Formats: sequence, structure tokens, C-alpha cells
Amino acid sequence: MSPPRGVSIVGLDGIPEVHPGDDLGAFIAEAADRSGTGLLDGDIVVVTHKVVSKAEGRLVDLSTIEPSPLAIHFAASAAKDPRQVEIALREARRIVRMSRGILITETKHGFVCANTGVDASNVPGEGIVCLLPEDPDGSAAVLRDRLRDLRGADVAVIITDSFGRPWRNGIVNVAVGVAGMDPFADYRGQSDPHGYPLVASRMAIADELSSAAELVMGKLDARPVALVRGYAAQPPVAGAERGGDLVMDAERDLFR
Amino acid sequence: MSPPRGVSIVGLDGIPEVHPGDDLGAFIAEAADRSGTGLLDGDIVVVTHKVVSKAEGRLVDLSTIEPSPLAIHFAASAAKDPRQVEIALREARRIVRMSRGILITETKHGFVCANTGVDASNVPGEGIVCLLPEDPDGSAAVLRDRLRDLRGADVAVIITDSFGRPWRNGIVNVAVGVAGMDPFADYRGQSDPHGYPLVASRMAIADELSSAAELVMGKLDARPVALVRGYAAQPPVAGAERGGDLVMDAERDLFR
Repeated sequence: MSPPRGVSIVGLDGIPEVHPGDDLGAFIAEAADRSGTGLLDGDIVVVTHKVVSKAEGRLVDLSTIEPSPLAIHFAASAAKDPRQVEIALREARRIVRMSRGILITETKHGFVCANTGVDASNVPGEGIVCLLPEDPDGSAAVLRDRLRDLRGADVAVIITDSFGRPWRNGIVNVAVGVAGMDPFADYRGQSDPHGYPLVASRMAIADELSSAAELVMGKLDARPVALVRGYAAQPPVAGAERGGDLVMDAERDLFR
Repeated sequence: MSPPRGVSIVGLDGIPEVHPGDDLGAFIAEAADRSGTGLLDGDIVVVTHKVVSKAEGRLVDLSTIEPSPLAIHFAASAAKDPRQVEIALREARRIVRMSRGILITETKHGFVCANTGVDASNVPGEGIVCLLPEDPDGSAAVLRDRLRDLRGADVAVIITDSFGRPWRNGIVNVAVGVAGMDPFADYRGQSDPHGYPLVASRMAIADELSSAAELVMGKLDARPVALVRGYAAQPPVAGAERGGDLVMDAERDLFR
């Protein structure tokens, strides 16, 4: 599990605005071709969830939403659209915090994030908001298969979102869906060069790759896909190639 | 603030084992020379805190430590060395969780992490543990100045550690010290390509760079320094070029 000496991250230009039903895999394959080398075996394709959600039609027109009294009351305190708050509440399975204008929930997938991942940025059309994919690991697997069908390349796919964290300012990109790679690099049970056994060193590689990819994505440039090359991700553990594995079990989490 | 299209991350080979008083800057400059291009203006030098701490002599010989009853009791429940627990307690300013064999504290710098960052891995010598630098932002600034003196290159420096996170499995590299760049990319107040104002988009770039660098560092290869090239970090805000800025103020943190 020796790490590579060099990794390159390239943002793919020219991905068009994605609409429900669009062939996102084809957009990515064509953008990768234009970027130079196309897709190669071992590449890691990192995609912001928003284009995946758009292709899957995970969009909601706020004009169709009737907000609850809870959503209306909170939205008034937070200068938010009560209909958007309503959708965030409907998409949640647990409220983590709902105060001081901030709504942090646990999504149906188990992710803990602001507004249940419901977001109006980078979505065209007045009053349209975007949800997280229904099954981000499944979406990643479908996209990975599509890219293999289109170009014959065996790539891994990571779907990302930007999450805040307790205790630290700013948001970072993390993985919400993973296919074709182990989301972790597990050093536990191995020893460092001095013979000391590593006990806590299970790196969340898929999250680190997501953060790395964000460096070339930006928020303003409509560059939703990055190609990471040179990182030799471990193959997925059978039955466990899932971004959902990045979600900590409730009984193991000291912060619940 | 347009992001770059491509970023490269190169791990520097040949950094020797670092001892107290060593000129870490010289080691890094020489390793960068050997890696090819040397250091260039705008490069971001990402360094694991451990080599910084070693150079600064932030090492403790456990044989000199008398553990308290608290440390002894907890260590017994956690299969840990009570002297190492004692040091973690002394380095802390607040206990966040101390149960189920896990000690999570707030360090004197404000970081929330396991064991107050006290760690025996990748430290030569039996019974020697390594602490976080006393002032990681200051350490980063000193290293940045040293690299400029040695090679004339205007680089940014990030000092990292690997932290666990609530709610997500695995650990990731984050920034504990920053010099020569803004640790954030702040999109708040700007609008996306569709004209929608971005309200929450303040990216913790220094953390993302730290995570990206970890991909080429690994835990077993004694490769404690990575060179990130192609990312146009924003210059530091006057008086605020600090990894400490990544620490959330207690009154703003909904998770305390």
C-alpha cells in the first residue's frame, strides 16, 4: 500500500448544463477526451453530486411545496425560504441542530450536513432546488459502468458534496458516493518504519480525494468533474465499496 | 478567484530522520531540488507536524513522566500507556470525551482531536512520544522564511496532522499551521453562474490541501513533505494568515 509519488488533478472543462435524463457519463467521457488523454484505467473520476442529481431529476420546484408551521417558524428566524426548509425537513431522518438560523440534519443516507443537502446554488431556474441523489453509491456505480461501456476504461467514481464540520471553520468536499475503490486506506495492524504498530491509522481516502478534487472545481466556474490520476486506490472490499461506509455507526460515534 | 485547471502533488523522497535542532528547511529544499524543479514561487509546501515537532524538540521521554490517578485509571480501561495519557491530559485545555477507551480533547491551540495530538508513531526510540508544535502557525512562518532564504522562492507552508471527525469513519489530514496564504477561499457574497448568491461557500482550502497532500505521504513510507503546484492560493489576509483561524469560535459552534 505504498502511496504514489505524484498525483495530478485536472478539472474537466466543457461539461454542459445537465438536465434530467441527460447522459452524464457521455458528457464526462467527451470532456475527458478534450482534456487530453481521455479516461485511463485507474483514474478516479470525482463528480459533484449536483450534476448527478440533476441528471437523475432530483430537483424540486418550490412552487409545489406547502411549508409546515415548523418550517415557516424556523425560516422566519433564519431569513430562509420556508418551502426550502420544508424540503430539508422532509429529506431528513433526524434533526441534529435547529437553532440560531442553522439547520443541521441527518439525511436518509446517514450523512450529517446543513439543510439535508438541499441547495439552490448552481441550479438554473427560479425557485428550483436540488436534492442529494437517492442512492449515491448506486449512482456512482451506474456512472462507473457507463464510463467503462463508453470508453473501456476501468475507473473509480466518487460523488461529492461540500459539508461543514464541527470545531473547524469552512466547508470541505467529502464523498457521498463511491464505486470501484476502497474508500479507506487501512494501515491498522501494520508497523511504521520504526516498528511501532499503527492502531488508529485508517485514512478516509475517498474524502481526501474529494477535497483534493475541489481545489480544481471551484464554485463559480461550472467545473463539476475532476480527474485524479496517479493515485493507486485499493480495490473495493467485496460488498463494501460504498461511500455509505464513511458514515459512522451511531453506537461507535461519541458525538451523538 | 478562478480555480486552476490542474494541480500536481509530489511527495518528496529522501527527507532524513529529523532530530531536535535539525534544519528542516534545508532538508526540504534539498529534497525539492532532487525531485526535479526545486521550489518555485507559488508552490505550497505541505509538511506533517511530526517532522516539525521533532526539529523543535517537542518530544517527551515517557520514563520521565509520573502518571496521575486519572491517567492510570483511564489507561487501564483503554489498553494505553498511562504516562502517554498523562501527557495528553497535560497538553489539553478541555476534555471533550473520555470514555470507551477514547480520549478526545481540545488542545491549547483550540484543535479538537484524539489524545491531544500526542503520538508515538513514526518516532524513533522506545518510549518517546511526539507533541504538536507549540505554535504551529509560527512554525509554518519560520519554515516559509527559511525556504525563501535558502532558495529565494515565495512559497506557502501548511503544517498538518491527521484528525478523526464526528459522524464519519476514518481520519483525514487537516491543517494545524499555515503561513503565506489565506487558509480559506471565500465565495460568500459572490453569485453562481445562474446569478444565485452563495451564502455558505467558504471553503477550508488549507484543510483540502492537507488532505490532498496526504495522498502522496502515506504512513509507512517516511515521506513527510509534499509539494503542491498549480493551486493559486489567495494571499493571506493581513493579520489572519493562520491555521488557528480554522478553529471555530466556541460561541459559533453548535456542537459544543
